[in-house]
Amino acid sequence: MGVTTSRRGIVRVVDGTASTTTDAVAVEAPLTIILDGEVLVTTMRTPGHDLDLVAGWLVNESGVARPGDIAGMGAFAAHDDEGVDAVRVSLAAGVRPPRPRAFVTSSACGVCSADVLAAFTGPEAPLQSDGWALPADAIPSLIEGMRDGQRMFDQTGALHAAALVSPALDPLWVREDVGRHNAVDKVIGKALFEDRVPLTDHTLVVSGRISYEIVHKALTASIGAVVAVSGPTSLAIDLARAHGLVLAGFARGGRMNVYSGDERITTGALA
Amino acid sequence: MGVTTSRRGIVRVVDGTASTTTDAVAVEAPLTIILDGEVLVTTMRTPGHDLDLVAGWLVNESGVARPGDIAGMGAFAAHDDEGVDAVRVSLAAGVRPPRPRAFVTSSACGVCSADVLAAFTGPEAPLQSDGWALPADAIPSLIEGMRDGQRMFDQTGALHAAALVSPALDPLWVREDVGRHNAVDKVIGKALFEDRVPLTDHTLVVSGRISYEIVHKALTASIGAVVAVSGPTSLAIDLARAHGLVLAGFARGGRMNVYSGDERITTGALA
Repeated sequence: MGVTTSRRGIVRVVDGTASTTTDAVAVEAPLTIILDGEVLVTTMRTPGHDLDLVAGWLVNESGVARPGDIAGMGAFAAHDDEGVDAVRVSLAAGVRPPRPRAFVTSSACGVCSADVLAAFTGPEAPLQSDGWALPADAIPSLIEGMRDGQRMFDQTGALHAAALVSPALDPLWVREDVGRHNAVDKVIGKALFEDRVPLTDHTLVVSGRISYEIVHKALTASIGAVVAVSGPTSLAIDLARAHGLVLAGFARGGRMNVYSGDERITTGALA
Repeated sequence: MGVTTSRRGIVRVVDGTASTTTDAVAVEAPLTIILDGEVLVTTMRTPGHDLDLVAGWLVNESGVARPGDIAGMGAFAAHDDEGVDAVRVSLAAGVRPPRPRAFVTSSACGVCSADVLAAFTGPEAPLQSDGWALPADAIPSLIEGMRDGQRMFDQTGALHAAALVSPALDPLWVREDVGRHNAVDKVIGKALFEDRVPLTDHTLVVSGRISYEIVHKALTASIGAVVAVSGPTSLAIDLARAHGLVLAGFARGGRMNVYSGDERITTGALA
């Protein structure tokens, strides 16, 4: 097993009262697959069972169907501090290789979380204006507003949603999609057409978990705060903190956890 | 708005009693983005707000930051029957384009759901043996077995899980990951190393929703049945039906919906 959970210091808000604590979060880290000496793909994953992950991916993407179809395989770490960050694999002669493609494109053969964090040069505009803050007691109604706009979820129970909220906390629009990332792209794309980008002081509300890519999308559009019904990954937290994005998760009922930018969330106790 | 939900005939099982009905499911369909005349990427999404989706994707992936950075944009349908299936876009001079990449690789400029279904040539081995069936009353304990194995979820509340179950319904292994697809890859990869692939008569249990890609991964490994805590998309159902994969969703408490292969699920009423 790799490092699958990690602890981060957080601010927990319960019924408007804030306290500091630490919380376990799911680790998200890049894994590069090197096939016959060539970088094939870099994907985000939770560390652990990395050889199984690569083998299973090959079953779906290539002609691999038997253990012997994989001629050799090994995990290695280019950086000592975070476990495996690449898997080298070679296929037996005659086995159909996967089609080349790249998700997180990189010419380097060892990408680690620090590389991923460093690769993002930062938002174009400030995420928040001086003095802008998100009142903790407004968050339940932001979540409720997103739920009210989830027409498809009511019908299908199977869609993710994203909502954009104005600096004054007015709900702007809600979008749904089978893909979490697509729902976020749809609300940001609408904002572009409305000439609202950069989205300084805006809040993005999402129905699901917060991965690295969701925070990346928020930062690229200079969004001020992200609030989620579920929790963030380690890399999402680290990227949010590096750029001052307000990041709150598990916003349910009167509770939430604040992972980044707690100085921009006003509560009874912190105000 | 495009066609965002679709209806499918299903078998609903409540406390062991089956009945036929129809249910709304989230539509999942491919969208191809064509940038300056070149196919850039084909992605699965829920139809609707497709121009917003592409614009938002460009905000994250390219230098687009203002409405004027997009010189032109238009949606078109290569197939009359299913709404938009491609968006053509051109960037203004000097705007940094996205890096080229391909998710669902295609040389065609118009990919539709039928193309996606036809592109999969079918599982290598039979999904089920003659006479193999999944007893409806065993499903709650399969879900429970996966939950018991979700050690990280208990800690973080933010991970997806996948579990593999033997033909005799013995739980084999549970894997967790920030990515639904990665958790499935991990259980299939482990099975490859154990020389269990093809996974005829095996059941894959997943914690989240069932997209096209999850069904594709199951079929590639010749898995007999997929059971999910949440629901499937339209394309997942259609792909499962095309190949006889047993597909059940919303398996919670004594209830579930069977979307494909109901003749392979034994219940009090259907037995």
